Amino acid sequence: MGENLIKRNERAAAGEGLPWEDVVASLPFNERGLLPAVAQQFDTREVLMMAWMNRESIEETLRTGRVCYWSRSRGKFWRKGESSGQVQNLKEMRLDCDGDTLLLMVDQTGPACHTGRRGCFYNVVKADRVVVDSEPLIDPDELYGK
Amino acid sequence: MGENLIKRNERAAAGEGLPWEDVVASLPFNERGLLPAVAQQFDTREVLMMAWMNRESIEETLRTGRVCYWSRSRGKFWRKGESSGQVQNLKEMRLDCDGDTLLLMVDQTGPACHTGRRGCFYNVVKADRVVVDSEPLIDPDELYGK
Repeated sequence: MGENLIKRNERAAAGEGLPWEDVVASLPFNERGLLPAVAQQFDTREVLMMAWMNRESIEETLRTGRVCYWSRSRGKFWRKGESSGQVQNLKEMRLDCDGDTLLLMVDQTGPACHTGRRGCFYNVVKADRVVVDSEPLIDPDELYGK
Repeated sequence: MGENLIKRNERAAAGEGLPWEDVVASLPFNERGLLPAVAQQFDTREVLMMAWMNRESIEETLRTGRVCYWSRSRGKFWRKGESSGQVQNLKEMRLDCDGDTLLLMVDQTGPACHTGRRGCFYNVVKADRVVVDSEPLIDPDELYGK
């Protein structure tokens, strides 16, 4: 693997940058060609979910403005909302200091979680229990047309 | 691998839960025994960084209230702030719907990023560039006593 170019931004001043085409070609995708991507609601700043992206899904997301992940379990592109109708529109894409994680600032329609809850991080560790903090916005059976 | 118990919370009502000891023993750690953990500043809701935790680092973090990751590059525990002094105090630990990602609500002292910036996600994709959005709070040479 060649140089991970994004590290050149470590000592760059605010406003400075690098060509995206060069950066994306040098990102440290894992052995499956994937990077983890955290989706955050752009206005409320709620962390909605974490999923995975490959280079093609990153490029599609930037091109279309609709978030497309790579589904590891199904082994195919996962255009968020394609079965549930609950799409994620991209507001901004960010990368961390070593380019091994993406942060997607999104505008999420309805629930992001397959359980029908707004976000996936509804399990809170409280003392010796893991407690659910919220109810579904939409019944998951309705969400997936069962 | 046995049943991933946290999935039983999918259809639980708010306030219901499961015993933590049973859940943590059944979490779907990856082939290296790790789960990704997203750290979010509890009050401003800024996403600060993403790192990895194993079962022991999760349990230490809950016990001490100071965030301890597992460093994949160094192959050892990484008690955040041990060399920089910039610690993360845990406010709340959350798990997602399928228990394969942690969300740590933290109170971060100073910069979370090794570059001296507040958070690691300072690289913004803008048109055909990846642009740095912020300056370090502290010079990284000072942070690590070089």
